[in-house]
Amino acid sequence: MADKKTALVISAHAADFVWRCGGAIALHQELGYDVTVACLSYGERGESAKLWKQDGMTLDRVKKVRQEEAQAAADALGVNDIRFLDLGDYPLRLDRDAQDQMVDIIREVQPKWMMSHSRWDPYNTDHMNTTQFALECRMIAQAWGHNPGEKVLGAPQLYLFEPHQTEQMGWKPNVFLDITPVWDKKRAAIECMQGQEHLWDFYTNVAENRGNHFRRNSGGMAGGRKSEYAEGFEMIFPQTVDELA
Amino acid sequence: MADKKTALVISAHAADFVWRCGGAIALHQELGYDVTVACLSYGERGESAKLWKQDGMTLDRVKKVRQEEAQAAADALGVNDIRFLDLGDYPLRLDRDAQDQMVDIIREVQPKWMMSHSRWDPYNTDHMNTTQFALECRMIAQAWGHNPGEKVLGAPQLYLFEPHQTEQMGWKPNVFLDITPVWDKKRAAIECMQGQEHLWDFYTNVAENRGNHFRRNSGGMAGGRKSEYAEGFEMIFPQTVDELA
Amino acid sequence: MADKKTALVISAHAADFVWRCGGAIALHQELGYDVTVACLSYGERGESAKLWKQDGMTLDRVKKVRQEEAQAAADALGVNDIRFLDLGDYPLRLDRDAQDQMVDIIREVQPKWMMSHSRWDPYNTDHMNTTQFALECRMIAQAWGHNPGEKVLGAPQLYLFEPHQTEQMGWKPNVFLDITPVWDKKRAAIECMQGQEHLWDFYTNVAENRGNHFRRNSGGMAGGRKSEYAEGFEMIFPQTVDELA
Amino acid sequence: MADKKTALVISAHAADFVWRCGGAIALHQELGYDVTVACLSYGERGESAKLWKQDGMTLDRVKKVRQEEAQAAADALGVNDIRFLDLGDYPLRLDRDAQDQMVDIIREVQPKWMMSHSRWDPYNTDHMNTTQFALECRMIAQAWGHNPGEKVLGAPQLYLFEPHQTEQMGWKPNVFLDITPVWDKKRAAIECMQGQEHLWDFYTNVAENRGNHFRRNSGGMAGGRKSEYAEGFEMIFPQTVDELA
Amino acid sequence: MADKKTALVISAHAADFVWRCGGAIALHQELGYDVTVACLSYGERGESAKLWKQDGMTLDRVKKVRQEEAQAAADALGVNDIRFLDLGDYPLRLDRDAQDQMVDIIREVQPKWMMSHSRWDPYNTDHMNTTQFALECRMIAQAWGHNPGEKVLGAPQLYLFEPHQTEQMGWKPNVFLDITPVWDKKRAAIECMQGQEHLWDFYTNVAENRGNHFRRNSGGMAGGRKSEYAEGFEMIFPQTVDELA
Amino acid sequence: MADKKTALVISAHAADFVWRCGGAIALHQELGYDVTVACLSYGERGESAKLWKQDGMTLDRVKKVRQEEAQAAADALGVNDIRFLDLGDYPLRLDRDAQDQMVDIIREVQPKWMMSHSRWDPYNTDHMNTTQFALECRMIAQAWGHNPGEKVLGAPQLYLFEPHQTEQMGWKPNVFLDITPVWDKKRAAIECMQGQEHLWDFYTNVAENRGNHFRRNSGGMAGGRKSEYAEGFEMIFPQTVDELA
Repeated sequence: MADKKTALVISAHAADFVWRCGGAIALHQELGYDVTVACLSYGERGESAKLWKQDGMTLDRVKKVRQEEAQAAADALGVNDIRFLDLGDYPLRLDRDAQDQMVDIIREVQPKWMMSHSRWDPYNTDHMNTTQFALECRMIAQAWGHNPGEKVLGAPQLYLFEPHQTEQMGWKPNVFLDITPVWDKKRAAIECMQGQEHLWDFYTNVAENRGNHFRRNSGGMAGGRKSEYAEGFEMIFPQTVDELA
Repeated sequence: MADKKTALVISAHAADFVWRCGGAIALHQELGYDVTVACLSYGERGESAKLWKQDGMTLDRVKKVRQEEAQAAADALGVNDIRFLDLGDYPLRLDRDAQDQMVDIIREVQPKWMMSHSRWDPYNTDHMNTTQFALECRMIAQAWGHNPGEKVLGAPQLYLFEPHQTEQMGWKPNVFLDITPVWDKKRAAIECMQGQEHLWDFYTNVAENRGNHFRRNSGGMAGGRKSEYAEGFEMIFPQTVDELA
Repeated sequence: MADKKTALVISAHAADFVWRCGGAIALHQELGYDVTVACLSYGERGESAKLWKQDGMTLDRVKKVRQEEAQAAADALGVNDIRFLDLGDYPLRLDRDAQDQMVDIIREVQPKWMMSHSRWDPYNTDHMNTTQFALECRMIAQAWGHNPGEKVLGAPQLYLFEPHQTEQMGWKPNVFLDITPVWDKKRAAIECMQGQEHLWDFYTNVAENRGNHFRRNSGGMAGGRKSEYAEGFEMIFPQTVDELA
Repeated sequence: MADKKTALVISAHAADFVWRCGGAIALHQELGYDVTVACLSYGERGESAKLWKQDGMTLDRVKKVRQEEAQAAADALGVNDIRFLDLGDYPLRLDRDAQDQMVDIIREVQPKWMMSHSRWDPYNTDHMNTTQFALECRMIAQAWGHNPGEKVLGAPQLYLFEPHQTEQMGWKPNVFLDITPVWDKKRAAIECMQGQEHLWDFYTNVAENRGNHFRRNSGGMAGGRKSEYAEGFEMIFPQTVDELA
Repeated sequence: MADKKTALVISAHAADFVWRCGGAIALHQELGYDVTVACLSYGERGESAKLWKQDGMTLDRVKKVRQEEAQAAADALGVNDIRFLDLGDYPLRLDRDAQDQMVDIIREVQPKWMMSHSRWDPYNTDHMNTTQFALECRMIAQAWGHNPGEKVLGAPQLYLFEPHQTEQMGWKPNVFLDITPVWDKKRAAIECMQGQEHLWDFYTNVAENRGNHFRRNSGGMAGGRKSEYAEGFEMIFPQTVDELA
Repeated sequence: MADKKTALVISAHAADFVWRCGGAIALHQELGYDVTVACLSYGERGESAKLWKQDGMTLDRVKKVRQEEAQAAADALGVNDIRFLDLGDYPLRLDRDAQDQMVDIIREVQPKWMMSHSRWDPYNTDHMNTTQFALECRMIAQAWGHNPGEKVLGAPQLYLFEPHQTEQMGWKPNVFLDITPVWDKKRAAIECMQGQEHLWDFYTNVAENRGNHFRRNSGGMAGGRKSEYAEGFEMIFPQTVDELA
């Protein structure tokens, strides 16, 4: 349908989209968007320590468990569509084929906005390589000469979602999104991540404190807009507007 | 009237608001805002070279001419209110009295957004000192204990308007505003600046090229929103939203 | 006593030291340090909104209440010595007299390390001006010609404690301190801040999440050093060591 | 001839050298330099939207048209030599073969200075990858063990020419070049770019405004060196001089 | 032996570890560490100009000479183990195989800390690519799913050692190490580098001046800790401590 | 004489100009410039530790000794004119009077270029305040309305000379000046600084290593311009040229 608004989240590993932008996903689904999540890998090698500590674990079993968790979280968030590109992790295999695959998805989705990781992450080069990959694919999707005849991409914003240690990544949010209305969905999605229970409260704390930042920035000591939970994002590209907010 | 939207521009010298945000002023007046412009000085010593080359020129005469030009430009833009604080220029006298005066204006206006110069300007320290002063006064206006009983300020955005050599100032616009509907007013205001005719075309070029940036960022090669003239601004504070654009 | 280790915290307003480094204070007191806290103001005008909303409030009463709260918090933390310089807030009066007063304190304390605010804070210029002031006074205290005959200051580290919105301030912690052993004291001190109850959980969340960062940086996915609560700091000066950690 | 001065411009797509440094090229040709332009691609897929909108267009035809335009522009500028490496665009194929090819060109040309794109470009990763590629090839060309016996490269400056949205790229010019004497040639070259007519005036505006920056930086309000048109560049490496300018 | 402390230095070319961290290596060997040095290449093509100027030189002979020099320097420093990965230089071949090789070494060594080059080096892209490679391999070595059953890596600090022109590389040391006790060993190692005699005094000067910085930062004008020679390093990751220094 | 070229160095304390730009001064005097040095203070309180350790020392005696040393150094360098503004140090008194005094000097000298400290110095706020002061005074000296009738200043470059710990100050040199021809004069001037003998070799090392940087940047491994001693500077403003170097 021509009027349907869409969004695309590019997540290096299967769980990243849950912690970092689960609220944005659930909220925009409720706002009528179709949100697509592309998981480049399952995080099967690098982000599944708990599973690997079990006897007789295999790569395929880890991938299966991780996929099920991610699918359950996506369901909890109401994600329209989740794709698993299975590119391997630690490191991701971001070659020409992966690029073609991702450009096809971008063109198919025609997202109003895109979302990915921070620009720098010395702890996890998969994350920053994913952002570089997202920019590269966005550019190709805009090229009239790439698969001529297909609808080319416009100029969607690329939002960078919150990394685990924000200050070390040089990530600076310039927009806070109120996710209070969908917090229950995000918490439910978080609880699908059985292998990373130590992070459940961490990201609940983050959401509460970003709620405080939302209130501060919307009103200061005079009392801002009430928000219990929020998420922060960094826009890479400038905005174009008809009125200053 | 309770619902009236307001804005406040703090301009180091009398002409700065014309070149740098004349479009934003005219546009928001048309959108129903009451825009107040506070000129800290007339730019009488440092930005009136042409006048000083005339025989027998005095400081008072320069100030008078500059005030008339600024008033004429403000009229062309439909500015609701322009205040001349006469703090002297090159350098500005930004002492405690000036602070009190500015805080009073801020509280009186209760601006939905504020606007001032870039954070760094090695060519013109008046400019960067004005931004520091604006932040300082914004903070005081938010204090419940400053003139208790007055209505305290909320948390308005501080937009930084375009400096003369953007890259040297470390200024990076993160929002472009389409000023096509009010371009004629801005050009008329520009032409009130008789003493700086060499800048008329410079800032027309800027507006045209920012229009190109507006188109690029709103649509890329797929064809963006049509905009002939635009202005760019850097937001200091993060935004708070209910939907990602 | 010659061997006594000392530390000095310079806090713009009366409550800053509680949220931002209460754990470091309590911990170092337990480690045998004498920690001195210098509050440049009570935050009486700008950080006491709740008090000002009461009928008939006066500046003196606000200062008195704020001093009592700060003193109670200091007691809870076991602070050795707290000084109130009463320099006014929003804005602070950081003139030559204030400088002399602070230099005297620095020389008297002879701190092994100092602590203050972030370098940049567009929300609160008192904070960044305090850091500039701390650097200035540290330099004067090192001068052999300032009050000749007094013991000059060595080269103590200046730690910058955590601001309210870290990313907006450009603050990047390069050291995490485990405050688990003294968390109860910090929470007790926090609860002395009756006027800012909305921040109690905020800073508890911060401490928990910094505990996670402590674990991550001490051990990664292999399991780091157990820490429930931590505080982060940014060192301005390089360290000098005899072995790499 | 031993004394012949040479320069090398590395352009990601066929048209980049025209908009961004056409003046520098024409001027240095007039100063007696032999300027070589290396176009890594024709911009056939990503920068030829207008051609792709024509019925029955093919990749080869786009490349042919783009090559003809670039050749015509090069002729207008008096370029000594233009090479088309045909590495594909969106994305460029910057592999080991491409590297060898470029190193051969660098060693053949032995440029007094080199020129390429900005270090960062989120809109167009081809641009920033080209700069990285230029640095890599410059390094290899300096290696005595690469094709031993060939003349190794000295230490030519790498100038970064002006990107389309300077502030978004973090590009900061530290040298302005007066191109007034060759402006007509640059405008003629610009007009060879039939497919991008919407940029003709944009880059004329840029040249005029950089002329203003030239005047400002050469003389300030006291009246600088007259320059109608200029181009800006960012030097990556420090200069070595015998007198300060 | 379980208690043995280990460290790992990743050096792009055979000589880098000598100039940049020879003191740290010798000192930690004396402190009881086993230090492993991994030389990715011999610097055979790009850093052996003097050898290539000899008649009839071949790549194999250059590599042999460079290996002997590096081995001699390692011996002078008391290096526990030096590995030559022979990945080629100018440019380094940092592919998947190289990655696997390096991850194996990291896991075998289980370093308490790691060390490599600066993040940016426009003169020598091998250097900055090595740092990126080190981060990538560190991440893989931490993955439980990489060669399951092997002992995974913890979270060792990555120190960046001093590049040749520090300011151009954006390198900022945040720790100085006193190498006075092992200076003789470092100088002896330096003198093993027969092909780069022009750098012997350069790096002696560096060590002396870093000694001055050590004294300054440990005591200021009041007289710091005596240090004749020092080395500086930049830590990428934050530290975790139980007491502030 | 109309054609006389002039330069102005603004030094926070009496000795700064010797260590940081003594070579540039001596060289430009030999090139026919008249160089004026303005010492804002003698460094009497903060940079005269050795003197203060003598019994019965007084502020006036310290100032006298420091003035004599600075004068002797100036003579050794062939400085045309040295002014002592006696503004006090630690901290400098940079008020309106000081400003007027400095603007008078700038206008009198009409420097082709100016020179001062780095933009940031957490060790010594006098240094960074001096740079801010220099920019402020440069701006006032350009104002046609400041003391109308006087010759206004053009747009001289402001060079920032080398601070003591370059990386901590965020100082990045973009020009190296060969001072080999005048090294003997600089060393002689350095030796006039009896109170800071511990810095003689430090700054000799700096000059030798900057000579290496000069050679590297003028020729790389192919062999650059021979330079034994050099000084580095950071230009704040962009250059305007007619040919790229």
